[in-house]
Amino acid sequence: MNIEDIKRRIEKFASERDWNQFHSPKNLIMALSSEVGELSDIFQWLNEEQSKKEHISDNNLELAKEEIADILIYLIRISDKLDIDLEKEVFKKIESNEKKYPIDKSKGNAVKYNRRDE
Amino acid sequence: MNIEDIKRRIEKFASERDWNQFHSPKNLIMALSSEVGELSDIFQWLNEEQSKKEHISDNNLELAKEEIADILIYLIRISDKLDIDLEKEVFKKIESNEKKYPIDKSKGNAVKYNRRDE
Amino acid sequence: MNIEDIKRRIEKFASERDWNQFHSPKNLIMALSSEVGELSDIFQWLNEEQSKKEHISDNNLELAKEEIADILIYLIRISDKLDIDLEKEVFKKIESNEKKYPIDKSKGNAVKYNRRDE
Amino acid sequence: MNIEDIKRRIEKFASERDWNQFHSPKNLIMALSSEVGELSDIFQWLNEEQSKKEHISDNNLELAKEEIADILIYLIRISDKLDIDLEKEVFKKIESNEKKYPIDKSKGNAVKYNRRDE
Repeated sequence: MNIEDIKRRIEKFASERDWNQFHSPKNLIMALSSEVGELSDIFQWLNEEQSKKEHISDNNLELAKEEIADILIYLIRISDKLDIDLEKEVFKKIESNEKKYPIDKSKGNAVKYNRRDE
Repeated sequence: MNIEDIKRRIEKFASERDWNQFHSPKNLIMALSSEVGELSDIFQWLNEEQSKKEHISDNNLELAKEEIADILIYLIRISDKLDIDLEKEVFKKIESNEKKYPIDKSKGNAVKYNRRDE
Repeated sequence: MNIEDIKRRIEKFASERDWNQFHSPKNLIMALSSEVGELSDIFQWLNEEQSKKEHISDNNLELAKEEIADILIYLIRISDKLDIDLEKEVFKKIESNEKKYPIDKSKGNAVKYNRRDE
Repeated sequence: MNIEDIKRRIEKFASERDWNQFHSPKNLIMALSSEVGELSDIFQWLNEEQSKKEHISDNNLELAKEEIADILIYLIRISDKLDIDLEKEVFKKIESNEKKYPIDKSKGNAVKYNRRDE
């Protein structure tokens, strides 16, 4: 995925509409929350099985795709506004997760590392 | 960004820990919400100016990077589980936004298209 | 529940700490989102059965109680700041829901009223 | 506010529509998240001043009242399903906050108690 290209496209979209005035990181994070709320809305009454790709309805899948795209657009926009290198941060986080959740202590147990011994 | 590579890395991480049993789309969306809540927590008492890259503290920026990475990891994981092509959906959504918010009607006005005439 | 009493107690708490400067409705809503994220975090890997009072662990129930209290505190604080009569609005909403979801059309079907005919 | 009365009214509403099958605590928490997302949506592009009761538009205030009512309804419903005494938990939490945030260390500084010394 060409993140730089998407950043430029969203920036152009925002500039043309004079929307940079609204796009503070704080506001963009609220917008991100609201999109995540819309995604939750689609899945709230489904059980886990019904939420899986084998069982989800075409309509719900289409709705989910749109919300997921919105979430990613805001996430890329926030990263642009805060000068964050998304790819670098994702790999750093994956490496940190691999250390925080060693296989032998985490197997079959998704309890957060800081609650593991409670 | 090599999304396929990240998908494989997360899948390997989850399989090795026997966590696929927890990773239904429904559960992953709740996990995504919880990470977005952590991102909100960092910005909740900052005003818009304080949230910008020129003014945000190093500590808050580091915290934000971690949460943003977590959010993207879950978003990529959800897309993997639902067979969603993230890049395709993002471009589709940007094009749809360009139509829904024509420049002349949207200039300086971030009101949602379906509330524009209220 | 004596909402007025709780409002006064939270207002006193905030004034004594000089926190009214942070308590704009916008900021309080971000704080509310972040608490809801913490509540999601507790339930994200539980299945529906495990989330029920008969099965939830004592530890998770205690954590949930704290988050639910935080959410209600922020909700009451937001209502205070926006002069909203919570009890009146709740009953108005229940009545409106009773009309939007007539028993015969809604039985066993939690689809949102505006998606019912899709 | 008569919480018991509201609990009974929501329970009746849910039973008549055969919706108890959907109302696991897990699902209700997702529904709560989605309502909080709708509340964020109303405030995301407003600045702090515009979010205050002196400046908020009548339309946005009406929308906010509805979302806040929805959030409280789900919160009461979750408490009912988990046998949580909301009033008791709120007062417990206020007392705990009074200890965690002593006036002299917290004055004018809303940094979370566990990040105060960072």
